[in-house]
Amino acid sequence: MLPKTAEYALRATVWLGRTSDRPQSADQLAKAIRVPRRYLHKVLQDLAKAGLVRSQSGPGGGYSLDRSAGDITILDVVNAVGPIERIEACPLGLKSHTSLCPLHRELDRAYASVQQAFSRITVADILNAPGDIPALVDIAAKP
Amino acid sequence: MLPKTAEYALRATVWLGRTSDRPQSADQLAKAIRVPRRYLHKVLQDLAKAGLVRSQSGPGGGYSLDRSAGDITILDVVNAVGPIERIEACPLGLKSHTSLCPLHRELDRAYASVQQAFSRITVADILNAPGDIPALVDIAAKP
Repeated sequence: MLPKTAEYALRATVWLGRTSDRPQSADQLAKAIRVPRRYLHKVLQDLAKAGLVRSQSGPGGGYSLDRSAGDITILDVVNAVGPIERIEACPLGLKSHTSLCPLHRELDRAYASVQQAFSRITVADILNAPGDIPALVDIAAKP
Repeated sequence: MLPKTAEYALRATVWLGRTSDRPQSADQLAKAIRVPRRYLHKVLQDLAKAGLVRSQSGPGGGYSLDRSAGDITILDVVNAVGPIERIEACPLGLKSHTSLCPLHRELDRAYASVQQAFSRITVADILNAPGDIPALVDIAAKP
């Protein structure tokens, strides 16, 4: 349901949370999270604009999170690249519909629940979740 | 969050549920639910293919629901034009991820909750919902 851009932005943010001790070059990042380099560039720009990611040039530079992983929610990341749109007014443009009709109320309710769920999970939650399969890490790869 | 096609398909289905006593021509339908004629054609084809809508030619013909409104859920309609995709396997293609990592587990959980919510609401529920604003009907329009 989420656009590809949101998926990529989440991968980037989670990976930068995992490698918080060493800024990542765009090439490192693209390879690690398997996102085409050009696509990633746009995503990183949006994340930087939203204040979630910063880039530092020069030796030892690269991309890193601009806030702590515990302070960035999935919703923050999704909204940085393409906000979850709520239904504020009748999509048909009916002026007599001063509030949402039952159809659009139900749709908006579903959107609200996704928004709420995503606002409760931080990047740190993802990184610290218990289990054998860490987010984005190929556990079969040689170190 | 839903694509426009799903929004249009829902409008069409709800409207046909409302006018179940008289089949609607494509023109009537397009005007009533404010969907471009050409776009609507594709949507109706998909709804027909899914067994939700039928068309009858000849005088008194037109589009109508092919099941009772109480037997069609929002999920049926959405799935007819573009299914809500669940995350079945690692989107990065990591073979070592034999189950979903915490990131994709959380995303899939949100998708599942939307799927579930939509599977619980029928077109009849939308039509019979209490309130002053009936779905899709311009209550200011002259009869």
